[in-house]
Formats: sequence, C-alpha cells, structure tokens
Amino acid sequence: MRIGAIEAGGTKFVCGIGNEHGLIEDSISFPTERPDVTMGKVIAYFADKRPDAIGIGSFGPIGLRSGSPLYGYVTTTPKPGWERFDFLGTLKRSFHVPFGWDTDVNAAAYGEAVWGAAKGVDSCLYYTIGTGVGVGVYMEGRLVHGLVHPEGGHMLTRRHPQDDFPGLCPYHGDCLEGMASGPAIEARWGRKGAELPPDHPAWEMEAYYIAQSVSTAVLMTSPEKVILGGGVMQQAHLFPLIREEVRRNLNGYVSAEEIKSDIEHYIVPPGLGQQAGLCGALALGLRAYERARTSGAVS
Amino acid sequence: MRIGAIEAGGTKFVCGIGNEHGLIEDSISFPTERPDVTMGKVIAYFADKRPDAIGIGSFGPIGLRSGSPLYGYVTTTPKPGWERFDFLGTLKRSFHVPFGWDTDVNAAAYGEAVWGAAKGVDSCLYYTIGTGVGVGVYMEGRLVHGLVHPEGGHMLTRRHPQDDFPGLCPYHGDCLEGMASGPAIEARWGRKGAELPPDHPAWEMEAYYIAQSVSTAVLMTSPEKVILGGGVMQQAHLFPLIREEVRRNLNGYVSAEEIKSDIEHYIVPPGLGQQAGLCGALALGLRAYERARTSGAVS
Repeated sequence: MRIGAIEAGGTKFVCGIGNEHGLIEDSISFPTERPDVTMGKVIAYFADKRPDAIGIGSFGPIGLRSGSPLYGYVTTTPKPGWERFDFLGTLKRSFHVPFGWDTDVNAAAYGEAVWGAAKGVDSCLYYTIGTGVGVGVYMEGRLVHGLVHPEGGHMLTRRHPQDDFPGLCPYHGDCLEGMASGPAIEARWGRKGAELPPDHPAWEMEAYYIAQSVSTAVLMTSPEKVILGGGVMQQAHLFPLIREEVRRNLNGYVSAEEIKSDIEHYIVPPGLGQQAGLCGALALGLRAYERARTSGAVS
Repeated sequence: MRIGAIEAGGTKFVCGIGNEHGLIEDSISFPTERPDVTMGKVIAYFADKRPDAIGIGSFGPIGLRSGSPLYGYVTTTPKPGWERFDFLGTLKRSFHVPFGWDTDVNAAAYGEAVWGAAKGVDSCLYYTIGTGVGVGVYMEGRLVHGLVHPEGGHMLTRRHPQDDFPGLCPYHGDCLEGMASGPAIEARWGRKGAELPPDHPAWEMEAYYIAQSVSTAVLMTSPEKVILGGGVMQQAHLFPLIREEVRRNLNGYVSAEEIKSDIEHYIVPPGLGQQAGLCGALALGLRAYERARTSGAVS
C-alpha cells in the first residue's frame, strides 16, 4: 500500500509516502510560501507516486466540522494567502483518493497512538512546543474536535514567581504559548534556548510552565499518556524537571500508579521522534483508506 | 420501561425510577452514611420496583477501567467505610440487571447530552460547583475516562490580583476547588454565598476563577456546550459575569460564532436543572439496558 502524508506547518511542509506499517519510504520538505506555490509543490510531489490515500495534518485553525462550508479550509491565520484557503478541496481536485484531514497536533497524537508512545492505549495528549505551542487530544479512541478543535497551547498560566516577562502571545500575552514557546524563551533570556546551558535558570522556568499545563490537562482529560514533542523538547533535560513539577502539582491527588510511581513512562518524548507529525498524517491517510474500503468507496 | 437511577453524592444519595424519555417517576433522598447503612436503603428502595436496568453516577474517585480489580469500586476517599468499597458489586449481588456506572459529573454530562442543554451535540463539559468542584467530560459522543477519570475541579488557578485567600484544598491549596467551591466562598468572606448580595465583590472574584477554568477547558477540549451546575451556580447573576470574563480571556482567539456572538447559549445552566445528576444516572442505566439488549444479554 502507498499512503501519502502531508505535515503542513506554518513554516515548512513535509510530504511523504509510506506504508500501512507506518514506514515512511520517501519524503521531501520545503518552506511554506503562498498557497499557490506551496500546493503546486505538494501536487507535483504526489503526481507520479499514485497514492492509495492521502492524510493531512495541518497548521490552523482549520475547518473540521463535516458539512460546514469551511470544512477542509485553513480558516483564520495571519499567513498571507492562507486565510480561508480551501486546502483539502485543492488537493481533492488533483487526487481522486480518500483523504484524512486534521490538525497537525491531532495528527501527531494519532500517529503516536497507532505506532508510537501511546500504542495500545485509548488516549493521549500530544504537545508540540516550538515556534508555537499546540496540543493534540485523543480520547476514548477518537481525535477530539468538538466545537472547532483543541487549542491547548493557549491555556492561561499561573505566573512563575520570579518571572516578569510579559509574554508574547498577541491574543493572550502570558498564555502557555506566550510564556513557553521557543520565541518566548529567546525574548525572555536574550538567547535561543539551544544556546542556553542545561543549568541555566531558563529551564526550571520553562519546566514550570509546561508542567503546569500538563497538570491541568491531566486533571481535565485524564490521558493515559502525555507526549511532549517539538523543538524546545529536544532539550532532553527538561523531561525530569517537568515530571517532578507535575508530581508536585498533583500532590498525590490522581491516584494512578502510572503517575505516582512510573511517571518516567507517563510523560514521554514522541515514540516516533521527529517523524510524529508525518507518521500521524500517514495514519490519518491509512484510516481514510480503510474507512472508504469499509464503506465500499474503494475496493 | 423502568430504569433505576442512583445519584450517589458524598453528602446525600438520591435514588429514582424513570422511563426511557428521561422522566423521573419516583425518587427518594437520604444522607450518605456508612456503606452498609446507605446501600441497605438503596437496595430496599429498588427491591419492589423491578427495574430493567440501573444507572449509577457516583462520587469518587471510582474505578472505571474494565478488567481492573477495582472496577466498580469507590477507590480513595476520606469518607468512613467507603474507601475501596465495592459499590457496583454490592448492587449486582441484589439486582440481576444491566448496570451503568460512571462518576457523578460524567453522569450529569451524559444526561445533559441525552435530554438536556447538550442535546443534539457530540460534546459538552458539565461543571458542578458546590461543596466541591467537579467536571464531567463528554467528547465525540463518549464519556471520557482515560487513565482514571477527569478531575477538572482541581485545575491549577491563576490568582485574582485582589485575592489573598490561601485556598482550602487539602491537596493543592489554591486549585479551582480550593478557591471557588462553596466552602471557599464562605471561608474567604465569612458568610455563605447564599447570604452575599449580588453586588458583593465575592461574585466578581468567583466568576474570575470559574471563567478562568472554563477558558482553559474550552481551549483544551473544545466542547460544543459548557454547562455550569451545582449549588454555587444557583446564583444566576454569576452567568453573565462568567461569560464576559471567558470572552475577555479568549480574546477572539477561538473563532466560533457560538462563543463570539452567542455565548449566552454556549455557557449555560443545566437543561435538566437540579435533576441533571439523577437523569444522568437514568441515561447511564438506559444505555446499559440498550447495550445489553444489542448484545443479547437481555431480551
């Protein structure tokens, strides 16, 4: 089987072809430009690959409500040309195959549930903490959409007592993204996170905000696994700091051995590593293929 | 059809009999004592009622993971005799009918989804704000359990700038329950909420904490409806304060007309009023009956 996968980020696109076991056989990456340029490259990439289905995990907000006139669109974004762009429709005109369509973080959560760190459980949260912060939500075996789709990266925060950084989210100032994204680290400390040593106070503060959000998300949604990915989480020394702070926050209230005595396997990096997003899109494509086959739309 | 319903609270139990349309035909209420006394009354109530199924919404934490040795139990609680009490098993020994079993707040969320304010949508949050604070989570047409079950009442809070009340949650101090429950209002202001006039500063502060939690929960889970119930929410003047503060918090970020221009119908009181919990248990019982019938266990 040949499943197409598109990890559509605000900064770059990754397109790939993989199989039903989650193996990516080929991929390319290019910067996100205006939709006509970018979609031209996407279509050119898949043109000779004859995919059986295509899955897309897209930056957003996007339209996910089936039946809505904006289903398949990128809805509101400051990125030139992408506001109200019919992402899915554009591809459907070129490829007559089943399509999977969800947010980039939901795709990654799903990929992790199918082949990664959340394989074998029915729920997980997937955080990406990088240029922005996003949270994919997979509960009771389903990706959560609801009214629009989760936007957990913008959760309100309780301020760290030593932190006077105002936050840089244009909507909320000191929400999670405003305080803990890569650009927030750089704006607060005057240097990129990658240039700060592991014993720099930036990391204790970073762990404080991430752990606060994870604690609240665990209380709110009770996931079986919390997966932390994205550029900032390449700093592996953050994991023990975050786990310790989550334990401190919950203070024994959630009486699950997974948290109380095995938090090292509860709050984890992506099992699919840097490929979580692309494999997630692949998993969405595979699911779309299987659903279409079940319904008789493909043989 | 005759469906039994049990709303098992930490302070009082309500038992009732209702039909498949959500109509409660008879009910009784008694204080929660030790399990042997309380369960004796429950069993006596249903003994001559010949229910076709029984649904239970219970205070917790409770065991919900099927296959776990603690499935059907109240797990950890300071209430004398209830810790590790086999609630479901005790009833199953007396009544050989299908049982529904979930938390009190999940039951209420489900009742609201079937017959109440969230009828016709696939997701809602049900808050109860009273002696404690709890949040039932219904997403993509399913009640959320995950690792244990949601405990959103204990979300961390950002402190109101004029509030120096330390909070009274024994686990977290100033979590949502610690700051916004009925006992927190009374401890902070020296009077019960019901005795404070609508223009008392207590209410702006109360709305601040509730709205903060609702904002974060909306960002995290994207529900189609947010239902606020419980004793504190009997103060109807809280609703406009909360809606306004949620709108201020989100600041236009969640681009859904339901929030932007119709928040009066988005953050609402229970459609089932004070019966949300009992009707929710009824809905769980009805669902258990239907599942058993589908699987051939009852005819």
